[in-house]
Amino acid sequence: MAKLTQLIDNEVFRAYATYATIVLLKMMLMSLITAYFRITRKAFVNPEDTASFGKGESAKKYLRTDADVERVRRGHLNDLENIVPFLGIGLLYALSGSDLSTALLHFRIFVGARITHTLAYLIPLPQPARGLSWVVGYAVTISMAYKVLKTALYL
Amino acid sequence: MAKLTQLIDNEVFRAYATYATIVLLKMMLMSLITAYFRITRKAFVNPEDTASFGKGESAKKYLRTDADVERVRRGHLNDLENIVPFLGIGLLYALSGSDLSTALLHFRIFVGARITHTLAYLIPLPQPARGLSWVVGYAVTISMAYKVLKTALYL
Amino acid sequence: MAKLTQLIDNEVFRAYATYATIVLLKMMLMSLITAYFRITRKAFVNPEDTASFGKGESAKKYLRTDADVERVRRGHLNDLENIVPFLGIGLLYALSGSDLSTALLHFRIFVGARITHTLAYLIPLPQPARGLSWVVGYAVTISMAYKVLKTALYL
Repeated sequence: MAKLTQLIDNEVFRAYATYATIVLLKMMLMSLITAYFRITRKAFVNPEDTASFGKGESAKKYLRTDADVERVRRGHLNDLENIVPFLGIGLLYALSGSDLSTALLHFRIFVGARITHTLAYLIPLPQPARGLSWVVGYAVTISMAYKVLKTALYL
Repeated sequence: MAKLTQLIDNEVFRAYATYATIVLLKMMLMSLITAYFRITRKAFVNPEDTASFGKGESAKKYLRTDADVERVRRGHLNDLENIVPFLGIGLLYALSGSDLSTALLHFRIFVGARITHTLAYLIPLPQPARGLSWVVGYAVTISMAYKVLKTALYL
Repeated sequence: MAKLTQLIDNEVFRAYATYATIVLLKMMLMSLITAYFRITRKAFVNPEDTASFGKGESAKKYLRTDADVERVRRGHLNDLENIVPFLGIGLLYALSGSDLSTALLHFRIFVGARITHTLAYLIPLPQPARGLSWVVGYAVTISMAYKVLKTALYL
């Protein structure tokens, strides 16, 4: 197992592992927030989820959309759209021989931007808070992609 | 290529490769099931997809939502939301020097939980079958994330 | 950092890094296209996004769906559903000791198929252009999954 231990001993790779895990846990939190709003607002989408509220018409009224549930779901989808590129490009970036301080700067700004994005979406904060936090995370990913292509390009 | 071969020779990494591939193939199956229901139920979303049913109004009636299609699509999105964290955190976990039996336990339970989740969603089984299978997969991912952060934490 | 540099020096891994980054950048482009259509068509989903158009009813009319916005969003989701499996299975495939020309063939066809899929979705081209490009990307991923399981299988 020597090789694997050496990979996780590398500081840039450890930084990637730490921030990737944090931002994925943040994304997973969106599922819990969705479930929380579905239950407190009684807004479900599957008939089997409302069976405990009674049979027939009395349960059917809980099959509805709720503005807060939909808002969290949009935030969750936006996370997927932005965190998937970070995971893939960030891993390759961490293996591209970047120096530690530059890598940390990228990872920290990205994770900070995505946490800000979630807060801006859920509170919600007035624009351009959400828009700007999205742009910052996007720009960090582009910057890492540039480094990966400069180092590894093999078409 | 010595280093790469050594990585794939590691048993924990091979176990990750096996279970990650299986659960991704399961997720890809959702696309086929969606296509199957779209075609058999004649429920499409893009006008160009209904062109073979004729022109104008005769084709337009197939631009509609179908309960079964939407159910599969929700299962597919739930897969994305849960399998993306497993892919990222599981890879880092496999590189964190976990022992083989513990790693296998994590991977097997996660993949079993996601297959159960899909069956519970598509049949559908009464709750809490789907809810519990979701929780089990979620808990396994959190457990791996804890191990990754304990091993690799570098903020 | 010797080990990391050796990984990125491997030609198959460099090819994976290149094509994975390209296809992720293509996926990220979908966000920009969505934003472009939302702004030009004035079709938003969050009340805070329309605040600059005035208060109350005058802004509310921009909270609506637009056919072109929805079309880009469907293309984006289809990207997620197909590029996530490519990222995971492709990484494992690149570490499975495939020879360079076979690996390049897989990566090039997949990325070409996904670019074609996006063009077919957005222009839109008549079917079966979009369907075929989807099938080709799907088949390439299955082919890589077969190689991964053949090399690494550890249940």
